[in-house]
Amino acid sequence: MSRIPVAVVGATGLAGQQFLASLAAHPLFEIRKLAASSRSAGKKLADAVKDDKGASRWHCTEPLSAEHAGIVVEDSAKMTTDGVRLVFSAVEADVARELEPRCAAEIPVISTASAFRYEPDVPVFLPGVNWDHVALIDIQRKRRGWKGFVSPGPNCTTVGLAMTLKPLQDAFGVSRVIMTSMQALSGAGRSPGVAAMDVLDNIIPYIPKEEEKVERETGKILGRIVGDEIVPAPLAVSCTCTRVNVLEGHTESVFVELAKKADLEAVKSAWRAFGAETRAMNLPSAPRNLITVHDDPFRPQVRLDRDAEGGMSTVVGRLRADPALPNGIKYLLVSHNTRMGAARGAILVAEYLTQKGYIE
Amino acid sequence: MSRIPVAVVGATGLAGQQFLASLAAHPLFEIRKLAASSRSAGKKLADAVKDDKGASRWHCTEPLSAEHAGIVVEDSAKMTTDGVRLVFSAVEADVARELEPRCAAEIPVISTASAFRYEPDVPVFLPGVNWDHVALIDIQRKRRGWKGFVSPGPNCTTVGLAMTLKPLQDAFGVSRVIMTSMQALSGAGRSPGVAAMDVLDNIIPYIPKEEEKVERETGKILGRIVGDEIVPAPLAVSCTCTRVNVLEGHTESVFVELAKKADLEAVKSAWRAFGAETRAMNLPSAPRNLITVHDDPFRPQVRLDRDAEGGMSTVVGRLRADPALPNGIKYLLVSHNTRMGAARGAILVAEYLTQKGYIE
Amino acid sequence: MSRIPVAVVGATGLAGQQFLASLAAHPLFEIRKLAASSRSAGKKLADAVKDDKGASRWHCTEPLSAEHAGIVVEDSAKMTTDGVRLVFSAVEADVARELEPRCAAEIPVISTASAFRYEPDVPVFLPGVNWDHVALIDIQRKRRGWKGFVSPGPNCTTVGLAMTLKPLQDAFGVSRVIMTSMQALSGAGRSPGVAAMDVLDNIIPYIPKEEEKVERETGKILGRIVGDEIVPAPLAVSCTCTRVNVLEGHTESVFVELAKKADLEAVKSAWRAFGAETRAMNLPSAPRNLITVHDDPFRPQVRLDRDAEGGMSTVVGRLRADPALPNGIKYLLVSHNTRMGAARGAILVAEYLTQKGYIE
Amino acid sequence: MSRIPVAVVGATGLAGQQFLASLAAHPLFEIRKLAASSRSAGKKLADAVKDDKGASRWHCTEPLSAEHAGIVVEDSAKMTTDGVRLVFSAVEADVARELEPRCAAEIPVISTASAFRYEPDVPVFLPGVNWDHVALIDIQRKRRGWKGFVSPGPNCTTVGLAMTLKPLQDAFGVSRVIMTSMQALSGAGRSPGVAAMDVLDNIIPYIPKEEEKVERETGKILGRIVGDEIVPAPLAVSCTCTRVNVLEGHTESVFVELAKKADLEAVKSAWRAFGAETRAMNLPSAPRNLITVHDDPFRPQVRLDRDAEGGMSTVVGRLRADPALPNGIKYLLVSHNTRMGAARGAILVAEYLTQKGYIE
Repeated sequence: MSRIPVAVVGATGLAGQQFLASLAAHPLFEIRKLAASSRSAGKKLADAVKDDKGASRWHCTEPLSAEHAGIVVEDSAKMTTDGVRLVFSAVEADVARELEPRCAAEIPVISTASAFRYEPDVPVFLPGVNWDHVALIDIQRKRRGWKGFVSPGPNCTTVGLAMTLKPLQDAFGVSRVIMTSMQALSGAGRSPGVAAMDVLDNIIPYIPKEEEKVERETGKILGRIVGDEIVPAPLAVSCTCTRVNVLEGHTESVFVELAKKADLEAVKSAWRAFGAETRAMNLPSAPRNLITVHDDPFRPQVRLDRDAEGGMSTVVGRLRADPALPNGIKYLLVSHNTRMGAARGAILVAEYLTQKGYIE
Repeated sequence: MSRIPVAVVGATGLAGQQFLASLAAHPLFEIRKLAASSRSAGKKLADAVKDDKGASRWHCTEPLSAEHAGIVVEDSAKMTTDGVRLVFSAVEADVARELEPRCAAEIPVISTASAFRYEPDVPVFLPGVNWDHVALIDIQRKRRGWKGFVSPGPNCTTVGLAMTLKPLQDAFGVSRVIMTSMQALSGAGRSPGVAAMDVLDNIIPYIPKEEEKVERETGKILGRIVGDEIVPAPLAVSCTCTRVNVLEGHTESVFVELAKKADLEAVKSAWRAFGAETRAMNLPSAPRNLITVHDDPFRPQVRLDRDAEGGMSTVVGRLRADPALPNGIKYLLVSHNTRMGAARGAILVAEYLTQKGYIE
Repeated sequence: MSRIPVAVVGATGLAGQQFLASLAAHPLFEIRKLAASSRSAGKKLADAVKDDKGASRWHCTEPLSAEHAGIVVEDSAKMTTDGVRLVFSAVEADVARELEPRCAAEIPVISTASAFRYEPDVPVFLPGVNWDHVALIDIQRKRRGWKGFVSPGPNCTTVGLAMTLKPLQDAFGVSRVIMTSMQALSGAGRSPGVAAMDVLDNIIPYIPKEEEKVERETGKILGRIVGDEIVPAPLAVSCTCTRVNVLEGHTESVFVELAKKADLEAVKSAWRAFGAETRAMNLPSAPRNLITVHDDPFRPQVRLDRDAEGGMSTVVGRLRADPALPNGIKYLLVSHNTRMGAARGAILVAEYLTQKGYIE
Repeated sequence: MSRIPVAVVGATGLAGQQFLASLAAHPLFEIRKLAASSRSAGKKLADAVKDDKGASRWHCTEPLSAEHAGIVVEDSAKMTTDGVRLVFSAVEADVARELEPRCAAEIPVISTASAFRYEPDVPVFLPGVNWDHVALIDIQRKRRGWKGFVSPGPNCTTVGLAMTLKPLQDAFGVSRVIMTSMQALSGAGRSPGVAAMDVLDNIIPYIPKEEEKVERETGKILGRIVGDEIVPAPLAVSCTCTRVNVLEGHTESVFVELAKKADLEAVKSAWRAFGAETRAMNLPSAPRNLITVHDDPFRPQVRLDRDAEGGMSTVVGRLRADPALPNGIKYLLVSHNTRMGAARGAILVAEYLTQKGYIE
């Protein structure tokens, strides 16, 4: 079976590199086109990810695939969709605003950028959580007159939160969520990212715009489609987001008020059972368990648990009753911000949409 | 004026060393007696804080005072209160349970141990917050027939939380508190403390017994005396406590439901005005501001703010309205766990009690 | 083909766990017996690697193999060699001194302990570097009247140094070696290992006995057998060994005086060509390249390079002429202290000795 | 006595801020003028050290002095020396190349920039080590026709090395020096400096141009004036410079071949006795001991020792005989790269030159 030819735009940045690493030898998708800023245009990828002294700027643990190293990078400002049937976009929000609609007029665009995340006809898929939002794609195409569509992923910090809330919402109802995050360095990117002097023996108490994103996206992802649009889930969400000296993986401390009282074992069962539909589809990037539950109170630990199932499983532990909230529970979760929280999560969405016939 | 002769028990441990460092050249107190386990008994202090290969086990940034180095350490199991008029106790809870009552029968004992923290006739002073609990000392003495008394300090994690809640309680009422802590390594002590391999590029999600202590102590400290006992404040507290790779200073992310709606500027004013009574007393270890308020959203940062006013001021910032709680606010705080949160906080309590005539 | 039944002693410690992780599904060896201290004896392995609160003390990134989890641990003081044909020993030096000869009287013992490393009839194999020292095994057996033999591996810090010196010695001669190490935390073990407070934002300048070991072992490993014993190589070695806040992998800064002038490209060629004999044997744990050479001046970096070829390749870079030594060169190397530097290196030695007929 | 009016150029950068912090309430010098790039020109200093979102970019532990906060920053490209009698320069090398001669034509310039460090008529003062190089100032003035002069300080990594070598050179002669450095993050500056993701759980093996600087400067600083120029000391120096995850303070592992055999106690005595001339001058920024010697083998530790005497003393320990070099010794040192290694070292030089009449 021949693979679907795809483009990766923003290919030289950290998120773009993660698309490349995750698409090496992918069974469904084959990279045929790479695009980046004009600075990289015209260079082979292998050269485009070197700095001006020749030092490597390839930041993934997987080596750069030979399959991709020789592809000549195009200028994303001039890129067309000729010869590809899907675009993975890893550009910054401001670039996305111009580039993504241009491509989506022709073919599907799966993105990690936030540019279109809050538009009413744009789904924000979180694998296993809101596949039913797929109906928005038809609405989006019709409304905008596009042959393709735009499908952005959630902010990396929303991922673990919404993933663990969904089974609670289904089984018990969720009224109120209070969350404090301890986020990894990789979420801040690489140019320049977080300065070592700022974070060594320290915690940075503020990540601009992050809290608003999480508070807003959680409701949208957990919402349902009524008529032509998503009605956000009726839950109140409040976050405080901090940056800690951890390489990869976000840790979140979550306090939840449920709509009805839940036994702690029932909560664990709901988490463990979650994702049956996704599992049954045998998508190449899907984890066996979307949620992994620990009973050991010393777990989850971000360094030990971020790579669970290739960074595609949200790991949760320390489930306790919350003495301060009605029907309250509290727990900690670890979620890999640059796997399920970025490129690999986006690829999993593309796999789903391919199986459902939205990408062909 | 001659200084009050005091003993420090548990003198060789981390908390004990901090008493020694903070009592060097103290204007009110003079160390005359040091006690520790039988392993150290009979040695000069300078020798007792060396390991068996002669390497230093003195862990404070201040050098060991010449004033203290030559004092011969006694066995705390056999120590009497002869020649001293106050005991600072930095022993473990199990040792405290036997030693502290034995000493308190004769003279006051100011302690960092948790052994007596939850007894109904024992005050848990947090400087500036509950000086009025001093009435419990008289009740304790009468009930137990002691000439002295026991006064333990709060858990280090309770300190910043209760400190910042008190002005809120006074001005607006506090109904509900949800807190996630990111605690420093020094809180786990030194023998062996946290292993570097466990915490590098990691977060440890569990500190046994810590959450229960904070939830319980906060109510007691903010409570009021009714008749012969403290009635805990009627607020619900829920915590999740974690350990991060930070040397000193606890960071806490706090969400509060107030009894009535508060303007954010009014909250800051209440914090800034707090502590006038304590300031007016000119106690040697008291900070000018019990609470320091930042408007810069990138503060407090634990490495930059933990030493504010010698580690005696709780530093708060990122005050925002909380969208998920009625009359909700949220903020972050940094509090020095081994200064105000341990020995220096205890010494400040002793200074207060001396000025009020309870120590003489 | 049936696998050789083996025992692992010291199975519950960090080094022992690494043997278990590396022997899961091994093509040549099958664990039939596990031994540890009396504290663990009688427990299933899965229980023996939990602490008294039930928290996991399994420290490898690979999960505990189901194949091993159910094996009941024996008391190493009483263990016999019945039913096994090889012992992997990961005990401390003092335990090794009694246990290893007892076992070696019957069957081969491959060890990470230092107890017998400096005996004249005991080889210290470094894979690919001194396979010819195998002749010592026959001498050892005859002299001691053992059916088996003892074969300890080198100190983890010696591994990368001697590995990179050997091709230099063969091609140019080595007269003088000056080395400064920056060693990983895992080299200090886990109970308690290095305290986080000691090493955060710090460097520990002293590792007791380490420098002497490296200085002594390097000469022995690079020596040659004359008559019945090893004559150390005639090179002067001087080290300074430090501990840095790195999880795994030792970095070493090396300055070498060669016997004759060497072109830098010739040095790289010698390194790259090294290990042909070992490669040709197709041993299961052998890397394709015993030495990996980087031209990028920003490599080797310990976090990026320690896992090269499963932690079995020594990674070298920054080769330069040394202006201060006659025929001088200088370079940096990274070597994985708990892979090639411990259990996996020992297993590779066992694979070699099996193919050569010393283990059957 | 009135203080000497001075200017600080490059005032808003990290090195410039350290000049400001060290000159607050200085007994000899008073800042009258601040200059920086055109981006900061026209702003009050307090505003110039904020980023465009108003967040503080003041990086010193000392608060910004009220004395300096209100000074309006000038454009360094247009700055004159009117009204000041001394310039402290903390600009980058390329800016220094134009600015420093322009100022030096009128008044003395004490600099941390490397631009003029290698000119034959320019002294590179290391306090206490080469005060006699002051004769070069007269030569420089005559040759260049300047009223002032340029006096740059050494690279921060040279400081501790040359400081500890000088007493050895005087007492025993130094033939050969081999050094590996483990350098702090602060040496790389702040915009952007070292990325946290690059250095967490890692070591960066290369600092461009650093090794050449140290190898060259050490000879110059330890050289002597013959006729009109400095003849470098006849010693061979070889370095490998690495970056580690330490906030402040460089650690160096040093191996030295002496010209004649030295008893280890004699070496310690030479170090301890060093600096008598400087001590006798009572310069405000001079430490009591230019070199502090530890006998505890676990010292120096960079976090514990970098602040010795306000970061102005080089701390040395682990002195041992070196088995690989003739008359060899080896040791470790810690030196504060942004105190003695930068602004404060430069101020100490200015104090010396003031007392000697070169600044008035």
